[in-house]
Amino acid sequence: MNAPLICSLLFLLAANLTITTAVPPKVHSDGRVTFRIDAPNAENLQIDVKGRTSNANDRKPFDMKRDESGQWVFTSEPLDPGFHYYLLFMDGYKFADNTNPLYFGWARPTNGIEIPDSSLDCYLPRDVPRGEIRIVPYYSSITQSWREIRVYTPPQYEKDPRKRFPVLYLQHGSGENETSWGNQGRAGTILDNLISEGKCNPMIIVMEEGYAYTPDAISDDSGRRVNSFEKLLLEETIPLIEDRYRVLAGKEHRAIAGLSMGGGQALRIGLGNFDTFSYLGCFSGASRDIEDLVKDAKQVNRKLKLFWIGCGTEDFVYERSLAVRSELQNKGVDHEFYSHPGTHEWQSWRLHLSLFAPKLFNP
Amino acid sequence: MNAPLICSLLFLLAANLTITTAVPPKVHSDGRVTFRIDAPNAENLQIDVKGRTSNANDRKPFDMKRDESGQWVFTSEPLDPGFHYYLLFMDGYKFADNTNPLYFGWARPTNGIEIPDSSLDCYLPRDVPRGEIRIVPYYSSITQSWREIRVYTPPQYEKDPRKRFPVLYLQHGSGENETSWGNQGRAGTILDNLISEGKCNPMIIVMEEGYAYTPDAISDDSGRRVNSFEKLLLEETIPLIEDRYRVLAGKEHRAIAGLSMGGGQALRIGLGNFDTFSYLGCFSGASRDIEDLVKDAKQVNRKLKLFWIGCGTEDFVYERSLAVRSELQNKGVDHEFYSHPGTHEWQSWRLHLSLFAPKLFNP
Repeated sequence: MNAPLICSLLFLLAANLTITTAVPPKVHSDGRVTFRIDAPNAENLQIDVKGRTSNANDRKPFDMKRDESGQWVFTSEPLDPGFHYYLLFMDGYKFADNTNPLYFGWARPTNGIEIPDSSLDCYLPRDVPRGEIRIVPYYSSITQSWREIRVYTPPQYEKDPRKRFPVLYLQHGSGENETSWGNQGRAGTILDNLISEGKCNPMIIVMEEGYAYTPDAISDDSGRRVNSFEKLLLEETIPLIEDRYRVLAGKEHRAIAGLSMGGGQALRIGLGNFDTFSYLGCFSGASRDIEDLVKDAKQVNRKLKLFWIGCGTEDFVYERSLAVRSELQNKGVDHEFYSHPGTHEWQSWRLHLSLFAPKLFNP
Repeated sequence: MNAPLICSLLFLLAANLTITTAVPPKVHSDGRVTFRIDAPNAENLQIDVKGRTSNANDRKPFDMKRDESGQWVFTSEPLDPGFHYYLLFMDGYKFADNTNPLYFGWARPTNGIEIPDSSLDCYLPRDVPRGEIRIVPYYSSITQSWREIRVYTPPQYEKDPRKRFPVLYLQHGSGENETSWGNQGRAGTILDNLISEGKCNPMIIVMEEGYAYTPDAISDDSGRRVNSFEKLLLEETIPLIEDRYRVLAGKEHRAIAGLSMGGGQALRIGLGNFDTFSYLGCFSGASRDIEDLVKDAKQVNRKLKLFWIGCGTEDFVYERSLAVRSELQNKGVDHEFYSHPGTHEWQSWRLHLSLFAPKLFNP
């Protein structure tokens, strides 16, 4: 008897689950994107999508229009190459299209769209040895909660169980979390590609959530709770990683970097803990006055093997980054400043990682 | 100068991102749950939530009601202990509340709610050595696409780099994917707990997406595309795992199990590949006629070290599972049949895994 693989009950259930009229956004050859949402009874529908069509400081959602079929449609202006978040608004309510891919950003799971980039391919998967990203649960005594660290290990880690590796601590931006560098940042793919080309030393990358609040965290003058991330990283994350993985010991084998808010954290932590880190990367995050961070330029120059700053010329923190560069120049602090056409988005940070990682852990 | 950690621009952005009036569902002591959605301008809002209040065959979303504050509110009847999916409908449009946790189920990222269970704690994290779940990318020649496998490795894997481990291949149900056993199933936590108690041999668990379509997949008589998952598992997944990880070779070190649709897959693959697997687990999936799968009871008894079937007595496949048990008894096929109060939901499958895993890989 040629019975079906799964009984009909299970398939009734399955069929019901997979019926959806939602369609992936269509990316046109010129970078415009057509979004379609099948919500025929909605009163109005709007979409908030980044790109040249909008900017971080003066951004309003765009109205979608209902077409003859009842679907809501919006076609954007050409968007910059790379990754852009988008979210939907229905009658003022903010939500995501959960029939299309979601990424943690904008402080919640958020839709993302990828515009092909003819000038950058470092983040596209290739037929090379692939590493992996591990989800590592641990209980934090500082936040008094279970947390997860994401840990990239290169293909060499599993291949050679005697080898030890240096570690890059790599932080996300505001509203993102420990998953963001791996998912929308493609950090693992970027490293796999660089390593396979011999451009980069195999290394472990540790990605933590950059928010760490104690249960009794008090608010500062601006009403924000005090973030204990630096304490968590130094007292819990690094010891856990060094206890658990085959890492090379010592500050010459540790780097810290981050993007935007995480770039600010990297600046503060890197410049404040010379005995822990030798390499410092700040991606679109050199937006603060560094007067209080650099007390002694000679010490910075002696202690850091690399102080790298990257920023796109169309990034809203670019002007501020130039001011930081001037401050560093005036103080005589050795650093590399890399600017490029680019905005405050993931395509810039993928580029930054692909340029920064090859400079790490070279004797 | 006591400059703020992050420049004001970045914080304006961050502040805008974190403003949300959404609240987590409130679980009452009797298992009722109050859901609140802040969508004051919606015309109507409904919620589809599993549990005793509904069943898989005759399930309709419940109407939410707008309260004085403008929030939409629904309080369920008491829900069974354990994990339940839920989704929202606004004016007929199906979506998730992406300010609350999402899990891949119902063929998309879907909300989930956890009702405490006074009788089962195997899935709650404890202060014991923790393993990890790895995200492993690979290119499939069968589907001609990049896929990801989730691989649980026990704490012993990293601790002792010379030790080799047996492998359980563990499949999700219909509408779920490779993330589901780790996230809503808590497979890693369950194993960590069992191993720490000495109840279970340390093992690797491999979780694949149970859907694998070739680009030219044809449809069968019922209009469904032919799923090449068995071929993918045998020809790509297992070789990849055995090449990449320190696994014990040989069929006596391999088990296959799955839930619901994945239980059907485990039945078919386990009973069809005696030289590959020695242990077979079918969780709420013994719903098919097994006449064509069991040609020779003596061979099954000789080849399989364990044939385990679990099903809740309130599961909609329970009657069918009893019929399968009778078939097996009539044919003289050795098996263990475990029934318990429980439905076709994750609490049953967490229980099944916690009972099945300790029976594996004992000499």
